[in-house]
Amino acid sequence: MHSPPHPHGGAPNGGAPHQARSVARHRDAVTELLAPLLAEGKTESLPLRDALGRGLAQDLAAPLSLPPFANSQMDGFAINSADLPDGGAELRVVDPVPAGATPAALDRGCAAPIMTGAVIPSGADAVVPVERAAPDRFPAPGVRSTVWLPATAEGTFVRAAGSDIAAGERALAAGTFLGPAQLGLLAALGIGEVTVHRTLTVLLATTGDEVVEPGRPLPAGKIYDSNGTLLESAMRQAGLTVVRTAISSDRPEELRALLRSHIGAVDLIVTTGGVSKGAYEVVRQAMDGQPAEFVHVAMQPGGPQGIGQFEGVPFLGFPGNPVSCLVSFEMFLRPVLSDMFGSPTRRISLPARLAHGLTSPEHKHQVRRGSFRSDGTVRLEGGDSSHLMHALAGSNALVHVPVGVSALAEGDEVEVWMS
Amino acid sequence: MHSPPHPHGGAPNGGAPHQARSVARHRDAVTELLAPLLAEGKTESLPLRDALGRGLAQDLAAPLSLPPFANSQMDGFAINSADLPDGGAELRVVDPVPAGATPAALDRGCAAPIMTGAVIPSGADAVVPVERAAPDRFPAPGVRSTVWLPATAEGTFVRAAGSDIAAGERALAAGTFLGPAQLGLLAALGIGEVTVHRTLTVLLATTGDEVVEPGRPLPAGKIYDSNGTLLESAMRQAGLTVVRTAISSDRPEELRALLRSHIGAVDLIVTTGGVSKGAYEVVRQAMDGQPAEFVHVAMQPGGPQGIGQFEGVPFLGFPGNPVSCLVSFEMFLRPVLSDMFGSPTRRISLPARLAHGLTSPEHKHQVRRGSFRSDGTVRLEGGDSSHLMHALAGSNALVHVPVGVSALAEGDEVEVWMS
Repeated sequence: MHSPPHPHGGAPNGGAPHQARSVARHRDAVTELLAPLLAEGKTESLPLRDALGRGLAQDLAAPLSLPPFANSQMDGFAINSADLPDGGAELRVVDPVPAGATPAALDRGCAAPIMTGAVIPSGADAVVPVERAAPDRFPAPGVRSTVWLPATAEGTFVRAAGSDIAAGERALAAGTFLGPAQLGLLAALGIGEVTVHRTLTVLLATTGDEVVEPGRPLPAGKIYDSNGTLLESAMRQAGLTVVRTAISSDRPEELRALLRSHIGAVDLIVTTGGVSKGAYEVVRQAMDGQPAEFVHVAMQPGGPQGIGQFEGVPFLGFPGNPVSCLVSFEMFLRPVLSDMFGSPTRRISLPARLAHGLTSPEHKHQVRRGSFRSDGTVRLEGGDSSHLMHALAGSNALVHVPVGVSALAEGDEVEVWMS
Repeated sequence: MHSPPHPHGGAPNGGAPHQARSVARHRDAVTELLAPLLAEGKTESLPLRDALGRGLAQDLAAPLSLPPFANSQMDGFAINSADLPDGGAELRVVDPVPAGATPAALDRGCAAPIMTGAVIPSGADAVVPVERAAPDRFPAPGVRSTVWLPATAEGTFVRAAGSDIAAGERALAAGTFLGPAQLGLLAALGIGEVTVHRTLTVLLATTGDEVVEPGRPLPAGKIYDSNGTLLESAMRQAGLTVVRTAISSDRPEELRALLRSHIGAVDLIVTTGGVSKGAYEVVRQAMDGQPAEFVHVAMQPGGPQGIGQFEGVPFLGFPGNPVSCLVSFEMFLRPVLSDMFGSPTRRISLPARLAHGLTSPEHKHQVRRGSFRSDGTVRLEGGDSSHLMHALAGSNALVHVPVGVSALAEGDEVEVWMS
């Protein structure tokens, strides 16, 4: 992922802290880079089942109230509360109200057996659960009978029309992630199709003379490409469509040709490796003449970052170590997509207590891998080195140590992002 | 979702608390029900990209060490630490070591320019970062030169072979969920295909005379079916393949015919509605003669539950209210699948402080919907009623109030499951 040393290679990764760009500023730059994709406003209308995991493109108002009509919260007797004085009363039992039926109006002095979810008849204003009745069961249909019922306040066990949401109210805001509950709400509102942001297509190019495709023999000195699988999986999990190039060598003309062959078919280009300060870093070289810059973000890992355009397509250059790649995606691309398009969901962020102390470079935002436990503690997995894939695979959280902090003790509170 | 009242309909949902089954016991019953599916051991071997979201079927040992060879953590000079006394020394610069190459052995008294990730030459045992050298840059290749380097301890900036994982060590355990990091690890290990549990196929049948498919006109007294969309989405998000029947009426022979037409093609049947204590509950009736029981779990919502087999296929009958359906899935089916098949991921469980007080039925495990915030507090969304879809759609967590607790105050700690 790095090219051979060069006479005018300059300093390695890092640079003086005061020259580095903050995490927030780089995230803003990524937001600016992708803003035109949102501005294009490319949306599509999909049946609910196909909209799972998408971001809602526009505010949605409720076309009806939920519940659409007052209905019973219990199996019981629909009554008029005015018919039941303090001591209760004996009422005449009329025809039962099945769910899904439109009941006749309830006459005064009567009680209608009613099932959960059935329409409250006009004239009734409350439900008495059957187990509070005497006798505490429903009479056979067609049999003339009476039932004793206790005094009951108006509205008891009645789900009022619109008590969940009223017609015309905003059901879901633009930018809402459409998960099961949101799609279930739309179904309850009778909405069968929904307008969502279209899926973005990302071209993912991993680079490096030393990198070999998994499943093939491994020559001495080479390593398997994990960045491709890691990032493709993370991007697909985040709802992106991913197009992979072959692994590019460290020759810039080869990388340029690989990227060019996809122009017009992708919304975003992401590369890995070749963004450090050496003169022969392949991605930097391939971007020569393109409006792209290579910056150092005050973050560990994932400091070196490329950003700009290649042949007019937005471009992000992540560093070459696998953990750096994933941290770059989680810190810069994923949250921007969430904020902009409503998909993927935002990471769950929460406070946790460190299971042990740590040190961190004071002028950098350190992102460590950790295992969050349900007691609210987090244990670090592996060290701070960005090549530790096994440790990454054993973690379920990113642990944030902000700029300005150089050490934390066991029990100190940190922000963690759950994966 | 409920049938008309009947003379011998018995008591409504609920029953005496001491007759109810605990949440844990019902979850165990679901585990037993699905155990034969695990025992069948149906697995498949998939390329990494297709294994995303699956559960690993068997332990996987590392076929090689990571890193496979000692390599440099920095751009710098590979040296033998014995050549650098306390005051440092001037060493002869030899040919650079590019990443991916197999370098020649390093002679004593020499320093080899080396890039991050490149193989440490034999004879070298440490790396001095280029910025600590004098001059602090790499010489031009082919130019004979020397470099002054400070004293450096053995092992400095060397990533030892096997420091992440050693060959033969268990890389991932059977039952591990395969997300981006786990697949990235397999790729780094050169593994191109992986054996995973096959996907289960669920037949989902929603029932009720009062229920209408979204997108169609809504007659008076009817409601739209949200259970189908809600549960299908939740199940698909959990990695299940879902087959939907048409909405069944409350006629048991219709439901039986719908279910029978799918026998042989599905692993599990899930129904919604028709499991309460009335005599004409459609699912109870359709299961007549099948080895299925209808129990009341000490949980709110989601108390009434059906479990057993229909024509030899495992069967779960969830109650008819949408929130009850989702809570049933989250409490009984999803965690059992996670534990048994490694997919979906387990819900993140964490302690949170209540933003306000609540009451709960003392003899039931109450599951409320809430919004967890990154300050560690959780706010309840909507009341405890199981028809509140809008509130559900605005929540991101399930809030657990265990049996034995009837009230909690603002600031009290509760367990929440993130969705």
